[in-house]
Amino acid sequence: MAEERKTFDVVFTGKGVMSGKMRNDIAVEFETMAERFEIATDEGPFHGGDGTAPPPLALFTAALTGCVMTQIRAFSKRLMIPIGAVEVEARLHWQGHQQGREPYVTAPVGFDLHIDLQSDAPEADQRRLLEAAKKGCFIEQTLAQGLTVGHRLKTQDGWQDA
Amino acid sequence: MAEERKTFDVVFTGKGVMSGKMRNDIAVEFETMAERFEIATDEGPFHGGDGTAPPPLALFTAALTGCVMTQIRAFSKRLMIPIGAVEVEARLHWQGHQQGREPYVTAPVGFDLHIDLQSDAPEADQRRLLEAAKKGCFIEQTLAQGLTVGHRLKTQDGWQDA
Repeated sequence: MAEERKTFDVVFTGKGVMSGKMRNDIAVEFETMAERFEIATDEGPFHGGDGTAPPPLALFTAALTGCVMTQIRAFSKRLMIPIGAVEVEARLHWQGHQQGREPYVTAPVGFDLHIDLQSDAPEADQRRLLEAAKKGCFIEQTLAQGLTVGHRLKTQDGWQDA
Repeated sequence: MAEERKTFDVVFTGKGVMSGKMRNDIAVEFETMAERFEIATDEGPFHGGDGTAPPPLALFTAALTGCVMTQIRAFSKRLMIPIGAVEVEARLHWQGHQQGREPYVTAPVGFDLHIDLQSDAPEADQRRLLEAAKKGCFIEQTLAQGLTVGHRLKTQDGWQDA
């Protein structure tokens, strides 16, 4: 008998409002689980903020690191490949380019993860686990595939593509 | 005289350790600003966690929403396009595909941002501001360009590409 193929949806929504010089408060909802989280971002004084919360890129760095770590743990059980106290070091490098006083334009340079599974399992098993975690990490797969975010802008004539 | 072209680097590092059933604690450093943030992720009970912190995808949703909002505000001043109390609604949709009991494989379906600048500026100016914010948002640009994360795994023979 062929094994069953299942597809499941994962939807997160965010509703962001301004709440300080550069601070944003975002009500995030994990729709499919009915979980809600209040998450703030801010900028440090150099960028005109009050430093009351991490900047968006700090949240992004934690999200990517945590995503891979979570999948390593989830799939360690499923694949029966034992792990120890997993440690992951991430380095995310971007550049900005600016012409005169124009708004700067950004681009990624490279993201790297150094992963120590602290595992006694054979290297081939550890690599198999890491491959599964990469494919199961929603953020890594989104980065790998690339994606153009859709935008709509509220205008006097209503919501328009932008 | 040609306007000066400047390039600047933005580097974030994260050091993640396991600190609960599914919880991770990530020490994030904004290297170029010497700012540090302790950010945790966890999963809800359905995924074997204790719900002590938002899941990675909730942080990711807040990061993307906050990134665009921050650039709208920064570039509003620079472009002298006035904005009101900006509100952004984000919807991020992924799917997972699973064959039998194998680890699931993930893919993005679509990310959408609905942006209300609450601005009296002409629509053309609002669109110009939004275009600048898209190009200045490190996360949107990374998604648009796509990026394969590099991995190294600690083995008995030292760090190896993985």
